[in-house]
This record gives sequence, structure tokens and C-alpha cells, in this order.
Amino acid sequence: MNIPQTSYPRVVIIGGGFGGIALAKKLAKQEMQVVLLDKHNYHTFQPLLYQVSTGGLEPDSIAYPIRKILSKYPNFYFRLAMVKGVDSEKNTLDTDIGPLKYDYLVLATGSTTNFFGNKEIEANSMIMKTVPEALNLRSLILENFEEALLTDSMDRQDALMNFVIVGAGPTGVELAGALAEIKRGILPKDYPDLDTRRAQINIVQSGDKLLKGMSEKASEKAEDYLEELGVNVWKNTRVTSYDGDLVTTNTDLTFHTATLIWAAGVKGETIKGIDGKDSITFSNRIKVNDYNQVEGFKNIFAIGDIACMVSDDFPAGHPMVAQVAIQQGTHLGVNLVAFLEDEKVMKPFVYKDKGTMATVGRNKAVVDMPKFKFQGVFAWFVWMFVHLFFLIGFRNRVVVFINWVYNYIRFDREARLIIRPYKKEKTKVVKMNAVKTE
Amino acid sequence: MNIPQTSYPRVVIIGGGFGGIALAKKLAKQEMQVVLLDKHNYHTFQPLLYQVSTGGLEPDSIAYPIRKILSKYPNFYFRLAMVKGVDSEKNTLDTDIGPLKYDYLVLATGSTTNFFGNKEIEANSMIMKTVPEALNLRSLILENFEEALLTDSMDRQDALMNFVIVGAGPTGVELAGALAEIKRGILPKDYPDLDTRRAQINIVQSGDKLLKGMSEKASEKAEDYLEELGVNVWKNTRVTSYDGDLVTTNTDLTFHTATLIWAAGVKGETIKGIDGKDSITFSNRIKVNDYNQVEGFKNIFAIGDIACMVSDDFPAGHPMVAQVAIQQGTHLGVNLVAFLEDEKVMKPFVYKDKGTMATVGRNKAVVDMPKFKFQGVFAWFVWMFVHLFFLIGFRNRVVVFINWVYNYIRFDREARLIIRPYKKEKTKVVKMNAVKTE
Repeated sequence: MNIPQTSYPRVVIIGGGFGGIALAKKLAKQEMQVVLLDKHNYHTFQPLLYQVSTGGLEPDSIAYPIRKILSKYPNFYFRLAMVKGVDSEKNTLDTDIGPLKYDYLVLATGSTTNFFGNKEIEANSMIMKTVPEALNLRSLILENFEEALLTDSMDRQDALMNFVIVGAGPTGVELAGALAEIKRGILPKDYPDLDTRRAQINIVQSGDKLLKGMSEKASEKAEDYLEELGVNVWKNTRVTSYDGDLVTTNTDLTFHTATLIWAAGVKGETIKGIDGKDSITFSNRIKVNDYNQVEGFKNIFAIGDIACMVSDDFPAGHPMVAQVAIQQGTHLGVNLVAFLEDEKVMKPFVYKDKGTMATVGRNKAVVDMPKFKFQGVFAWFVWMFVHLFFLIGFRNRVVVFINWVYNYIRFDREARLIIRPYKKEKTKVVKMNAVKTE
Repeated sequence: MNIPQTSYPRVVIIGGGFGGIALAKKLAKQEMQVVLLDKHNYHTFQPLLYQVSTGGLEPDSIAYPIRKILSKYPNFYFRLAMVKGVDSEKNTLDTDIGPLKYDYLVLATGSTTNFFGNKEIEANSMIMKTVPEALNLRSLILENFEEALLTDSMDRQDALMNFVIVGAGPTGVELAGALAEIKRGILPKDYPDLDTRRAQINIVQSGDKLLKGMSEKASEKAEDYLEELGVNVWKNTRVTSYDGDLVTTNTDLTFHTATLIWAAGVKGETIKGIDGKDSITFSNRIKVNDYNQVEGFKNIFAIGDIACMVSDDFPAGHPMVAQVAIQQGTHLGVNLVAFLEDEKVMKPFVYKDKGTMATVGRNKAVVDMPKFKFQGVFAWFVWMFVHLFFLIGFRNRVVVFINWVYNYIRFDREARLIIRPYKKEKTKVVKMNAVKTE
């Protein structure tokens, strides 16, 4: 990898998400050599991916080059790499660009979509955890309407204009709201020769409330907002299969749809070598102690979604959200500096819950702060302000802000471009695999 | 295609570039049914593609949904389609979404890259005529530097950091200037552990001047600017082969490079059925009379790059630039309305040359107006103003303007994101083809 050996201890961080970046910023000023590995050369602001999917934002304005975030630190090295495994005895990583020795290893690999073992749903549904995935969904939504114009079958047309979102966490709720606004504001203008009133947006949730983990009030209000926008909300319903057209559930409810978006769960993105049964716990996350040290290892740490730190307040670990990752990254930064001097001075991590929020549509958001909870226009402004604040990069903030103002005034989302068609690409890959398996 | 038959005559326009859009805007208000076909659902502002390739702009801000441009016209229909051929006897088009009858047909298919028959160069070089192509180039440039960090071979490292641009028209010159600015302003910060001073930008031109078609003064000044920026300018040199590493020319000059960008020529994008020997002339363009009528056809017209209208002033047809396409589109709009009433009242097209311009870098541009010519800072401001003016969409203009201001103040280009890796994708396709041909 051409990274020089220095007298400084080498800390390798896997993953440039919220946790990895927060940690790298802390460490890169210290007497350590910090190596960050990521499979993308940019940090993704995941909370706004749904706006990329729905044509409200450019992908470039919610992504930020990792090299640029950390270019001012002399001891920092970035490598574009996919990590294949860890050899914890030899303190070595195996990656697609060669092996790498570490003195300290931090797993900040985040989480991946959890299909709970359902291969059929995995093969046929859309997900939205990365920029390319969000762009695939954007392409597919638009391609569906283009195709709907061409078909003479009413059934097929309905399936193409029917969107089923599984999972009513923030991602599912925000996406449902955005699609409902597109149905109302954009489809009738863009497709005057199509009866877009027949377009349907469905959100299906296995539990009995939306936005699990938020307050009763927030959950109820979010449901009201979605219904005002014309979204069909299905609670206490579990999707059991999807073959690319028919969705079945554990109730009598079925749908015909060309687009099922799976936002029903995430699981820790583990790495070979640290994925023994002893290390893994709820949601495929890695057990860590109060110092984010992976159980059974002295020089391996884990932060953010991948880490499960069990405590009295969080018996199943902290929520898998950006705030936890950022706070653990920053905290581990302080701890690691202390650890290198004397391992006893590490301080246990304590999560400061700054609140949770979700937006459903224009002027419609819900905010739960530790002290007070509110909904509506003010919550919506708070949501926007907080997201702009946490976005990395001044230019990104300005561009996102301009887009929001424009979209708000004009009831519009102009980035409805099929830059890389998704259906064709999928067919090509399927064909390719078919050829291979012959 | 589910387009209703009405009592209005149906005009089918193939291509949503500058010409097609200008024409559609004119006709869609008239008593005609206008059908526009394009293989993308967006209009591309091609003059700024090089800024997408070099990370200065988002693709979404130089593309604009075609449906939105024309959504207010009731007689307008858009279909996302690839046209396969024309049956001029039956007045029918063959497309990938089915056949389509026309009363009047307008070819506005533009131009495609001309490799002058060199298959090897075509297989190994990068081009930049569409948004996906510009993004592929962006990815490749960044992937090259990531790879250069990893290799121990100095030769390979030099090849990865060597860029060879073939063709010194506006595209080649503008790209060379942008790459030179990246070398100077961004590479040393992003890749501190790489000796980026060794990066080379070469521009190779078969003729003896840059920006052929512009004034002597503009051409000389552009060359000065490029040299100031550290670009190697090679005139009177014709690239003869490129195997993915070695570039040979008709002189002793050779290069080792991982990236050859071919901007050396374009040719008309003809369509089966209107590509007989009688219809085709210089640069694979279609012969039209003074009314943009394709020779030999009464109800088929051609505008823009694809059309070759020979006159005393333009013995080889008009230049293949946006201005000609826009003027011909608008003019044909007026002519077609007249033609439908009485074919004799059509007026011959006369090109009003509004000037030509190219930008090389910050504060460095050249402008040739019919009455006066100027270069430098003022030319650079004029270039920016004109490009913002012709860009479609208020939001796009604001976002592009913000990016330019930011990039100017910060000497930066933040969209250096590898969203769809190019090398991997290419390898996949090559493998796929290999499997197929076995």
C-alpha cells in the first residue's frame, strides 16, 4: 500500500462514515499514523439519500471527498480499499489492494441492509444505503413512469405506478412522504397523458407504530402527515415475499408492484476474522466494552452502527444512528490518546441523546428532544437547520440550501434525470450471471 | 407508443439537443402534434461537460428534464426511445419501443465522436459527449491517482499521471486547462504522498493551430495560456495508435499513458433509412437545402450538427456548434408552420454568427465576436455570463454560479467523487463480452 513505517503507532480505521471521520479528525493531530480505508473515496451523508432518490438533490452535494476532509493532517493516509479480513494474531488486514499491518484497528464499517435471510426479496427489491443505490432508485422510479406510458395493460400500468416501502423508520417515512409529494406536484405535469392519480404509495410496517423509538406523539403525527399526503399506511403487517411483481404479507394484504423498497432493517457489516460467535450479538453487531474495545481483543475497537455496547440504559446497544457514531468516534479519539500512554485512564462512553427527528414533507416534521417534543412547521425548520449543520462542506451546504429553497417555492424537484438507466443495467447483469453459470 | 391520433399533423423530432428543443418550443404552441424522441430523458448542456469530468460541477446542474422544458404545451409528447431506422416510404419510424407514424420528420440527432475508422483508439480511449461519458472520465482520472499511490513501478506511476488529449478544439483546450489547474491546486493537497509534479498534461493537434475556426489572435493566446498553466502543446502531430498504454504519432513523439481523451473530431449521427450515399456528405452529415429539407425528401428535415447546408459562405456546411442548431431549430419552427399552409413561403436559413469563445482557466478565455476580439479576464467573464445565460433552468444557473464562485475563491473543485468506478465496470464488460464470444 506504500504507507511509510514511522516511529508513530499506526491506527487503521475501516470506514469513512460519521464515526470513522470523527475519529480520524481527533487522531490525525496526534503522534500517531492514521490510515483510513473506505470502498468509496467520499463520505456519504446518508440521512439525505432519500432526497437524491427522489430528484430533490444532486448526489454530489451530499457526498464529500474524504481526502479533502483530512488533507491538512500530515500523519493521515487514505486508501481506496475493500477490506476482506483481519488476522488479529498477526495484526494484519487483508484488502483488495494488498495487506496492511496495524498497531491499533478501529472497525467503523457501519451497517448494511438486513433482509433477515429472505433471498427472494433481496434479489428483487431496491435499497438505499449508498449513493449508487440511491441513484438506481431514482432511475427506476422515472423508468417506471416512462414504461407505464407505453403499456396497454392496466394491471401492468398500476404495478409500475405502485410503490411499496417496507419499514417505517425515518428512511421509509421520509421516502414515502417525498414520493407522495412527487405524485401530487410533479407527475400530473410531467405525464399529462397518464392518469397519475392511480399512482399509489404504500408503507408497510411490521410493528404497530411508525418511527419506532420516537415518542407516541411523533409517531401518531407522522402517520397523520403521511395520510394527509395520500400515503397508504399498513401497520402490523409483515412482508413475506416479493417476486418482482407480487408482494405477499402475513395478512390477506397483497400488492402488485414493480418497485419494492426495502427499508425494514439493518445489520452490522462485520469483517472476516472478527465475526466469531463470541464477538457477534444483536443485529449482527460486534460486542464492545464501555471503551469501544472489541471483546477479547486489546488493540481492536469498534464504533458506530457496527458496535454494540450493552448497558442498563441500552440493553440491546445504542440506536444505529449518526449521533452515536459521531460521539463514539470523538470519544474513542480521546481514549486512544490516553490508552497509548496508560491504558487505565480510558473513560467509559456515555451517550448524550440530542434527540431524534424525521421529516415527512413540506412544513411537516417531527422532533423529539430530550426535554421537549414538537411537530409541524417549526420542527421542519429545525430538521433542515440540523441537517445543513451536520452536512460536511460549505459548498454542499449552500447548494443543498439553494435546492431546498427552490423546491419549496416551486413545488419542484428538478434532478429527475435517468443518467444511468437501472432496468437495462440490471438485465445486463442478470444475463451476465446467466452466461457465467452455464 | 400510445400517442393519440388527432386531426393535427404529427411532427416527430429525433433528439432533444439544442436544435430539437428550440424547434419543439416553436411548434408546440401551433396546431401540430409534436413528438420528441430522445434516448435520454434530459437535455444535456454539452459545453460544460468538461467541468463535470474535472469535478467542478454536478452532472445534475448541466442536465435538465426534457418533460419539464415542454410540460406546458398541450400538444407535446415526449418518449424515451432509441430510433433504429426510418421507413420514408411508409412515413414510419422503427424504435426500441415500437413503430411510430409521422407526417413530418425532423432529424436533430446531433453528432458522435469520429475515430476516423481507428478501432484500436476507439476501444481504448475516453470520450466526453454525454453525461455518463463525462462521469466515466471523472472516475477514471481519480482512480488513476488512487492506483498511482499503490504501484512501485515509476513507469506505471508516470503513465497513470500522464493525460493525453487529442484534438485542440474548444473541448480539448478547455479540458487541458482544467486538468492543469487540478494538477496545480488540488493534487498536491489530495495526494501529499505522491510526487504529483510528475503529472503531465499533453494536448496533441494534427493542424498547426489550436482552436481551428477561431482568429489567429485567439489561437495564439489560448496556446500561451495553456503553456502558462504547464500544459505541453504538440502541434502538427497526428496520433496514429493507442493500445491502452503506448501512444504513437506520425512523428517521433510517443507517450505512455493510462488515459487518452479523444476530442479530435465528430461526425453526424445518421439513422438507417436516411443514410444512403446520396444523402450523406462531409463529416457524415446529411445534405439539406436552404430550408433544412433533406435532399430527396419532402417531409423530412434535418437541423444542427447532423445537417449540412452548403452555401457560398459555408462550402462544407455550418460549424457543428450549439448556435447553429438553436438558430436552425427556431427558423425551421417558423418555416414548418408556413410550409403546412403553402410550401412556397418557406424562407432560406441565414446563419447569424454571434461569435465563438473558449475558456482555458481562471481569468483566461478567448472571445471572437464578429466585430471585435478580446482575451483575458474580461473574456473569461463574458464566457461565464454567456454560458449561464444559455443554460436551461433557473435552479441550474444558480447552482452553477455558486459552484463557480466557490471554485474561484477556493481554487477548488469539490465534486471529485468516484460514484461509479470506471475501471471495474470496464473490466466487467470486457469479461462479459469475452464470455459471450466463446
